[in-house]
Amino acid sequence: MFSVCVRGHVMIAHSFRGELFGPAQRLHGATYVVDAEFRARELGPEGVVVDIGRASQALAAILEQLNFKNLDEEPAFAQQNTTTEFLARVLFERLATRIRAGELGPGSERLAALRVTLHESHVAWAAYEGPLSGGRSAAV
Amino acid sequence: MFSVCVRGHVMIAHSFRGELFGPAQRLHGATYVVDAEFRARELGPEGVVVDIGRASQALAAILEQLNFKNLDEEPAFAQQNTTTEFLARVLFERLATRIRAGELGPGSERLAALRVTLHESHVAWAAYEGPLSGGRSAAV
Amino acid sequence: MFSVCVRGHVMIAHSFRGELFGPAQRLHGATYVVDAEFRARELGPEGVVVDIGRASQALAAILEQLNFKNLDEEPAFAQQNTTTEFLARVLFERLATRIRAGELGPGSERLAALRVTLHESHVAWAAYEGPLSGGRSAAV
Amino acid sequence: MFSVCVRGHVMIAHSFRGELFGPAQRLHGATYVVDAEFRARELGPEGVVVDIGRASQALAAILEQLNFKNLDEEPAFAQQNTTTEFLARVLFERLATRIRAGELGPGSERLAALRVTLHESHVAWAAYEGPLSGGRSAAV
Amino acid sequence: MFSVCVRGHVMIAHSFRGELFGPAQRLHGATYVVDAEFRARELGPEGVVVDIGRASQALAAILEQLNFKNLDEEPAFAQQNTTTEFLARVLFERLATRIRAGELGPGSERLAALRVTLHESHVAWAAYEGPLSGGRSAAV
Amino acid sequence: MFSVCVRGHVMIAHSFRGELFGPAQRLHGATYVVDAEFRARELGPEGVVVDIGRASQALAAILEQLNFKNLDEEPAFAQQNTTTEFLARVLFERLATRIRAGELGPGSERLAALRVTLHESHVAWAAYEGPLSGGRSAAV
Repeated sequence: MFSVCVRGHVMIAHSFRGELFGPAQRLHGATYVVDAEFRARELGPEGVVVDIGRASQALAAILEQLNFKNLDEEPAFAQQNTTTEFLARVLFERLATRIRAGELGPGSERLAALRVTLHESHVAWAAYEGPLSGGRSAAV
Repeated sequence: MFSVCVRGHVMIAHSFRGELFGPAQRLHGATYVVDAEFRARELGPEGVVVDIGRASQALAAILEQLNFKNLDEEPAFAQQNTTTEFLARVLFERLATRIRAGELGPGSERLAALRVTLHESHVAWAAYEGPLSGGRSAAV
Repeated sequence: MFSVCVRGHVMIAHSFRGELFGPAQRLHGATYVVDAEFRARELGPEGVVVDIGRASQALAAILEQLNFKNLDEEPAFAQQNTTTEFLARVLFERLATRIRAGELGPGSERLAALRVTLHESHVAWAAYEGPLSGGRSAAV
Repeated sequence: MFSVCVRGHVMIAHSFRGELFGPAQRLHGATYVVDAEFRARELGPEGVVVDIGRASQALAAILEQLNFKNLDEEPAFAQQNTTTEFLARVLFERLATRIRAGELGPGSERLAALRVTLHESHVAWAAYEGPLSGGRSAAV
Repeated sequence: MFSVCVRGHVMIAHSFRGELFGPAQRLHGATYVVDAEFRARELGPEGVVVDIGRASQALAAILEQLNFKNLDEEPAFAQQNTTTEFLARVLFERLATRIRAGELGPGSERLAALRVTLHESHVAWAAYEGPLSGGRSAAV
Repeated sequence: MFSVCVRGHVMIAHSFRGELFGPAQRLHGATYVVDAEFRARELGPEGVVVDIGRASQALAAILEQLNFKNLDEEPAFAQQNTTTEFLARVLFERLATRIRAGELGPGSERLAALRVTLHESHVAWAAYEGPLSGGRSAAV
């Protein structure tokens, strides 16, 4: 199995509901350094898993949708705690949608799986990974 | 599959038995920067894999048992080389025991797998990962 | 010149005023991974620049004052853009005050200088450094 | 499953063919920081996945074959784009060959899988992982 | 003294002349992860050392001049070994020229000093730092 | 001012005397990831601050003297707490001695200053820096 990973980042505000979260129930924020790892069983004719330029642009595009925003006010996340793990899945789904729409170019149908990791500090991160419908599922 | 990871560290002394280890047969020591990655197929109602506060405390508690100690004198490790990979499994088992005892709070029965990684320098690390009996096993 | 550095982190929300800031004029947030570097020309009798336990606690205490807060609502920062460089100086001053009050224990009068660095992402950081009145100033 | 990982690096020149690569069609170069992760289901009698000294030497040996070279002139890569993901597989195969030849010492027949990761900058990396014929295949 | 730092990267090919360089006399290449640290004694009215957007663009612009190139063929470096430390000074001078030309916007005359660091692997880096004529020189 | 930095690491055991150290009074250990930064005002004819190969060897040689040892039993450190900051100075002095002895080759008389940093975990480091007698002192 091959992997290619690109990195971006996003800075957001939000708050959480539930006693579980203690002081994080207050409005606060985070920088998420975001890794998107694309996996494929075979390389394309150019020798790549995916066009890394298009992959970086797709990651940047989905991060731009959240960047410098208060997630508490985003209709898409109404009634949701936008925890790091929840956001990892959101970014996974948005990237998967772009992949299925062909935005990553010819050969992206080879992509078998995707993993999105959000580093929220030097001591904590979260991730979501899953198969992509366009490819033969990897062990995810 | 979702993941949440927390980080801690521990500083220990030990020595190894066996020609394989060369100068590491002498009493020496290490800082281990330790990552504990918790995995679950679904999020709980609060939108989390696990209560990250409790997860950090559980990791800190098992590291405290080893911190500032000479592992050569620990009865639990008698006749054992406390290599980085061996310690990764020890920490995995101790954390798994706490998970099964409910120490990570309601919802920890959702946890499917655990990975413990020990970074011993900027050029070497070791890990142990496995399924947790309380959850449906992931591809580990 | 000796240095000892300890690390912590803080997660806050804020917004900026001024066209210069573009989309960062919206309410957003950041994780700051914070390094506090203490400098002294000589070591104390125990062989330390400063009691690293007390230094870590002092850093944690000043970070706790900001943690999980919306800085736009903090009276201390009224009419101020809480940029990364501005916050570096705030944390410098708050830590310097604690040092001068003797909170870091005997020997802290030896401290000559302090540098506070805030990492806001994998591609940007800011810092403030200056002499401490209790010591002979270093080249800062 | 246990893992042990060692790190090395290599500095090479190369160019790519295909419009996909834009300016990277020109002769340029890269530093690859390379991680080799060895996996086994059980530890050997000494408590190790693999002799880490031999593992480091084997990694260094395969990196030395490429170090300070223009890959465009290497017969082994004729008519190939030596992309990061392609090189990850090359290094995987060369390391797997050494493992099968017994170069990593007694017990290396326990190795079940191998993952080779090449970090090409602070914002991109690629990897190749697969089972090793000498062991029971892991979920790779 | 305040600092603000931004990061970029560049991938180049080159070779060195002189027995000192051993195998690095062959054509090879490197990824340089480049930090540009801007220093000022005071903040401007917006609370910044420098417009970080313009600073990032200026760094990106000078890196673009070298990116995906064979430095052996660059007229600007004829008869020069383009070592990491030499390139640190080149990037320092090119950035200083842009600062003096006002490219970083109003307030950039406050900048007192600049440090450019090139990380060439996980085990080596080089830097060049110096005062900027537009400001009161810092201890560089 | 130019800098070139190389990295190595060392694994040791030790204990501390004094109530200040709490549980660190017990025999324990540490991995120190060690950076040696060499500074010079001018480059030599080859375009380097120092022969990086010789610099790496000199660093490795002084680390080897401590590696896999119990520092409590080293006559050189009798009656001393081998704290991270103390060890930073020890390594500084040992490296400075080798520089003055000409071990880093022709041109090492240009070296103006040296900084040795020991990273002891992901949350703490210490350093010692000072001028070198063979060069014009930098702002250290």
